[in-house]
Amino acid sequence: MPALDSATLDTLRHVSTATLTTQLFKRGLRNTFMQGVAPLVAQTGPNLVGPAFTLRNIPSREDLDVLELFANPEYAQRKCVETIPAGHVLVQDCRGERNSASFGSILTLRLQVRGVAGMVSDGPVRDAATIAALGLPVFCAGASAPPNLLRHHAVDIDVPIGCGGVAVFPGDVIVGDTDGVVVIPHEMAAEIAQASAQQEHLEGFLTERIRAGAALPGTYPPNDETRAAYDAWRKSRGE
Amino acid sequence: MPALDSATLDTLRHVSTATLTTQLFKRGLRNTFMQGVAPLVAQTGPNLVGPAFTLRNIPSREDLDVLELFANPEYAQRKCVETIPAGHVLVQDCRGERNSASFGSILTLRLQVRGVAGMVSDGPVRDAATIAALGLPVFCAGASAPPNLLRHHAVDIDVPIGCGGVAVFPGDVIVGDTDGVVVIPHEMAAEIAQASAQQEHLEGFLTERIRAGAALPGTYPPNDETRAAYDAWRKSRGE
Amino acid sequence: MPALDSATLDTLRHVSTATLTTQLFKRGLRNTFMQGVAPLVAQTGPNLVGPAFTLRNIPSREDLDVLELFANPEYAQRKCVETIPAGHVLVQDCRGERNSASFGSILTLRLQVRGVAGMVSDGPVRDAATIAALGLPVFCAGASAPPNLLRHHAVDIDVPIGCGGVAVFPGDVIVGDTDGVVVIPHEMAAEIAQASAQQEHLEGFLTERIRAGAALPGTYPPNDETRAAYDAWRKSRGE
Amino acid sequence: MPALDSATLDTLRHVSTATLTTQLFKRGLRNTFMQGVAPLVAQTGPNLVGPAFTLRNIPSREDLDVLELFANPEYAQRKCVETIPAGHVLVQDCRGERNSASFGSILTLRLQVRGVAGMVSDGPVRDAATIAALGLPVFCAGASAPPNLLRHHAVDIDVPIGCGGVAVFPGDVIVGDTDGVVVIPHEMAAEIAQASAQQEHLEGFLTERIRAGAALPGTYPPNDETRAAYDAWRKSRGE
Amino acid sequence: MPALDSATLDTLRHVSTATLTTQLFKRGLRNTFMQGVAPLVAQTGPNLVGPAFTLRNIPSREDLDVLELFANPEYAQRKCVETIPAGHVLVQDCRGERNSASFGSILTLRLQVRGVAGMVSDGPVRDAATIAALGLPVFCAGASAPPNLLRHHAVDIDVPIGCGGVAVFPGDVIVGDTDGVVVIPHEMAAEIAQASAQQEHLEGFLTERIRAGAALPGTYPPNDETRAAYDAWRKSRGE
Amino acid sequence: MPALDSATLDTLRHVSTATLTTQLFKRGLRNTFMQGVAPLVAQTGPNLVGPAFTLRNIPSREDLDVLELFANPEYAQRKCVETIPAGHVLVQDCRGERNSASFGSILTLRLQVRGVAGMVSDGPVRDAATIAALGLPVFCAGASAPPNLLRHHAVDIDVPIGCGGVAVFPGDVIVGDTDGVVVIPHEMAAEIAQASAQQEHLEGFLTERIRAGAALPGTYPPNDETRAAYDAWRKSRGE
Repeated sequence: MPALDSATLDTLRHVSTATLTTQLFKRGLRNTFMQGVAPLVAQTGPNLVGPAFTLRNIPSREDLDVLELFANPEYAQRKCVETIPAGHVLVQDCRGERNSASFGSILTLRLQVRGVAGMVSDGPVRDAATIAALGLPVFCAGASAPPNLLRHHAVDIDVPIGCGGVAVFPGDVIVGDTDGVVVIPHEMAAEIAQASAQQEHLEGFLTERIRAGAALPGTYPPNDETRAAYDAWRKSRGE
Repeated sequence: MPALDSATLDTLRHVSTATLTTQLFKRGLRNTFMQGVAPLVAQTGPNLVGPAFTLRNIPSREDLDVLELFANPEYAQRKCVETIPAGHVLVQDCRGERNSASFGSILTLRLQVRGVAGMVSDGPVRDAATIAALGLPVFCAGASAPPNLLRHHAVDIDVPIGCGGVAVFPGDVIVGDTDGVVVIPHEMAAEIAQASAQQEHLEGFLTERIRAGAALPGTYPPNDETRAAYDAWRKSRGE
Repeated sequence: MPALDSATLDTLRHVSTATLTTQLFKRGLRNTFMQGVAPLVAQTGPNLVGPAFTLRNIPSREDLDVLELFANPEYAQRKCVETIPAGHVLVQDCRGERNSASFGSILTLRLQVRGVAGMVSDGPVRDAATIAALGLPVFCAGASAPPNLLRHHAVDIDVPIGCGGVAVFPGDVIVGDTDGVVVIPHEMAAEIAQASAQQEHLEGFLTERIRAGAALPGTYPPNDETRAAYDAWRKSRGE
Repeated sequence: MPALDSATLDTLRHVSTATLTTQLFKRGLRNTFMQGVAPLVAQTGPNLVGPAFTLRNIPSREDLDVLELFANPEYAQRKCVETIPAGHVLVQDCRGERNSASFGSILTLRLQVRGVAGMVSDGPVRDAATIAALGLPVFCAGASAPPNLLRHHAVDIDVPIGCGGVAVFPGDVIVGDTDGVVVIPHEMAAEIAQASAQQEHLEGFLTERIRAGAALPGTYPPNDETRAAYDAWRKSRGE
Repeated sequence: MPALDSATLDTLRHVSTATLTTQLFKRGLRNTFMQGVAPLVAQTGPNLVGPAFTLRNIPSREDLDVLELFANPEYAQRKCVETIPAGHVLVQDCRGERNSASFGSILTLRLQVRGVAGMVSDGPVRDAATIAALGLPVFCAGASAPPNLLRHHAVDIDVPIGCGGVAVFPGDVIVGDTDGVVVIPHEMAAEIAQASAQQEHLEGFLTERIRAGAALPGTYPPNDETRAAYDAWRKSRGE
Repeated sequence: MPALDSATLDTLRHVSTATLTTQLFKRGLRNTFMQGVAPLVAQTGPNLVGPAFTLRNIPSREDLDVLELFANPEYAQRKCVETIPAGHVLVQDCRGERNSASFGSILTLRLQVRGVAGMVSDGPVRDAATIAALGLPVFCAGASAPPNLLRHHAVDIDVPIGCGGVAVFPGDVIVGDTDGVVVIPHEMAAEIAQASAQQEHLEGFLTERIRAGAALPGTYPPNDETRAAYDAWRKSRGE
């Protein structure tokens, strides 16, 4: 799978998940936004953006899922943290289970040291205050203290998974902002990024009109006249 | 339906939804507080207060609910935003559906420009950070990016609806504070407002007694002796 | 039941619920962390710590649960607030019911005046902003305005209950931090506190190694070599 | 608490829970019907009727809730089965927990041998096919095989509890039919029984009119003319 | 809106909701099957089929929703039962609320007398055993005894609603079998019926091949060879 | 993985899932019983028993999950049906999703023709009446008509999955009876089978004592005296 060009990634850092889901919706993709997954810390800077690297968990079994498991470097969870490429986003399938953590502060720190872009899980995290202080973008189902072995056994890395009810294939582009997390199929990322930037540029113009008192009809969505005004405005700015 | 007098509205801006639900409870109304609806931004100033103007949504249908729909000024959602009177509160029935937005930032801005008091929905909003920055009081079910057409087809305005599990008739008085949103039947608003103000005045007095070390029995609720002390205190303040 | 020694209590104020649930998990206790219960205000100082004093609620009945009930000092809720010993934590069984408050600001103030350590409930509170301003640690299921009589009839104090899906026996030690609330059986509190402090001391050392670039294998969990380095480091600090 | 007279009990065996909840609703009791509780076997004969004898469970704890507990005759569950009076209905508070059984076939058989009227639980039963074959009326949340110790620790007998979201005080009258289970406060049982029988007698007459083609208006509910016809019909039958 | 031709209705009585949802899915309609709605009695004969006639309920209010309401022939629920045309299906929007009944046996009997095809609700029914005995096809959310006024206030008839999470416009074609209920937009009914009958005719042929030992590849879905065999078989039968 | 001996399989056909979960509970395995999974048809004969062969589904994507997918014999779902060994049980991970089918009648027929022991899914099936008539043991989450592509994309066969909240490793032994489905780790199956048969033999004896009027204490669980009586009875029968 070819790497995403940096222009696309950069564009995605500055468009909203609202716009992205609209562009995906226009192309027939209706189930792209994760349910029950929110930023641990309200996002203020650019979006979390990066290709997905996945970790799949199944329900734990008491005889297998003991703390000693973590000493095994081949255990999928440990291996995932050590092998995920820099710039990628770790995406965990926790089946939406809220009764135990999916990650803690030391693993999150290790992700940060390794240059990972962020972490997304449809389960909670533990040590939430410590993780929040690290500054790595984390999107999850809130906080829950119990160790992940209480509910999870990690089995696979870099396979297709579900997260927050959305299909995530390795390499799909993850974008997270204050609203939450959207998954963009890898092959559509460049097109969606460009169309989203165009939509937001237009909407910036329309927002000013609305702020100035324009009514919705004719403005949002724009009729021919408004569109012409937009084109003129763009020309006037040399765009 | 007669407009609410401004004294009642002003009183309602300064009593809590906790007090209001108690007064409604005393009169036999037990189901007046919306479930799953919270302020998008923690309320700090006066309450959101205003008569309800409603928008009813049903589940969407893929062939009907396409983006082109928004260009039709008669589409109920668009018409609602353009016709809701200033000072009213837009209340949306989204059936508690959390998988798509019920509103975005441009429509919210238009409400604000039009002088609407606020927006209440039992669905989420998209562009949550942008909406929060507008300053218009919004009470909803958190944030979710997908366009509302993903789940909703707007069909009616200004009809009785359910929102957050509560009946909302057009003109009912909506009050929102940090705890959430209460619905007061239009015809009871003046009485409930006055009784609530009286309750809070008394509770202010009782709170000081509790703070000073008084035990609950005899103080909260007040027995005859405490009530006499309250009356004396009021008299001493010339009330 | 013997009182907990103050060293144990103090230790528990400075270890995380994440660590505590791990130590309980190691000893076979898997269901110790309350579900759906979160700090009303993000915890910043030391943890909420104290022995549990319980209040049991059952569903309300309209003919019994009227506001006049609160005038009866023998009503279990009122009696609970007046008899809970200083330093204890009031823990309420609200069956996870989110449609009404479990507590309001005046009762919470009374708890604070009486020197109670904090309040934990698997239901919401009303007057949430006022309670937040009091500064007493409160862990609950968010905010909801309706009076507790809408859903609850208090029947017992100081009996075993469930709260957030966890068994709470009177005297069990309650610890709350940003992640939430853990229940430690009274007889295990000293052992768990000590083991948790040791775990966190070690993890502090390991965290620095991770921050400095160490990989997880061999570091977390520590192999013999890392453990020897830790012992040497401790010795070097005269511990 | 005085025993219920046998005429009341007999009347209750032959009126529907639909009628009973209507009569309770008319008297202001709106929360009397258990949620999530259904007959294990479709009821065909008379209703399950009897005074409630309660068992309260809290969440289990792995160190306490081991199979050896059952050998202790003082364990609340065992004591409950051995002390519940004949003709009573065992009502269990299982907090609506569906992940483990609340009862199995041998305990149910013991209830039957002891002359108990039936068993009601807001948790499932195990050995469902065997219990169904016993013929004792059982109302519960379906079937689930795991032992009750997985989730439950029995702590009290004959105390007020919640079951299926309804308050159950010892001695309250339990009535179960195909629709489910209603709880009638002990002191209202005679009045509710009589009013329900009268309502059903009238509705039997009205049903025949509807079957014969009468429209709802004027018939159901009956206007003065229909009521006069009913009175005449009753007189003609010598009632 | 033109009435549906009887050939279409008859075809729809003999194809499965599984096939119908597949044909709708092929045409881009993904949300056509009601959630949480099941036949009260396992269907054995032909499907329930008919155009939708709707009833919209909102949450009840204690002061409005009293039993006397039923004496008013203009109350939407009563009016709905008296005006729904014969052959139509009454479809109720109960917001998926399971805590009270949406209908009882006398109203259901009146529907039957009036020649209505059946009743569909996303709430439960009361008098479930009596309704089951009537033989009118009823699809609902199980049984619950409390009167519908406990939760519902009927406000509209013959308007677009949601039921079981699906949009239902008046005149849409409702089809119910053992799997549940599908909603077919009125204008697509003839096409969907015909395509479904063709699909089932083909699948009947394929099923015999599978029963005889054919592997899935090439058979289901059919490749060119299988399709040719099917055509030959049809020709051999003179179809 | 060695095949299970036929004696173990045969024993498992005649012990209840209640007994099996008790034996697993005694050995520390508490999470072995699937939640939300029930027999499509009440089981009357021997249990469903066989080693698990798994199918993993993730959420579908509209552009990938089109009906043409089924023509590809390498699509995981199709491949699974064609390669699962006779005598095995197909276990599907559908993430508990109830809004679409996980299987239909033709695939189920193909499983039956291939000699598969049964099918288990934590999603519903479509064509439920047709599947029920086939006689193959199916355990699932009820019925739902929409095609599985609405929600599911099959990605893997014969990998560890979760089903009904329980870990299922390929080769684990699946046992289903009227109560539902238990998962026994492959390596424990022989031991659990034998211990369960012993437990049930003893319980058969105890049940007769209870039926004859014995009280629970001393009988269930048996004290030394009862155990001696059991041993004598066994000896008297030449066991």
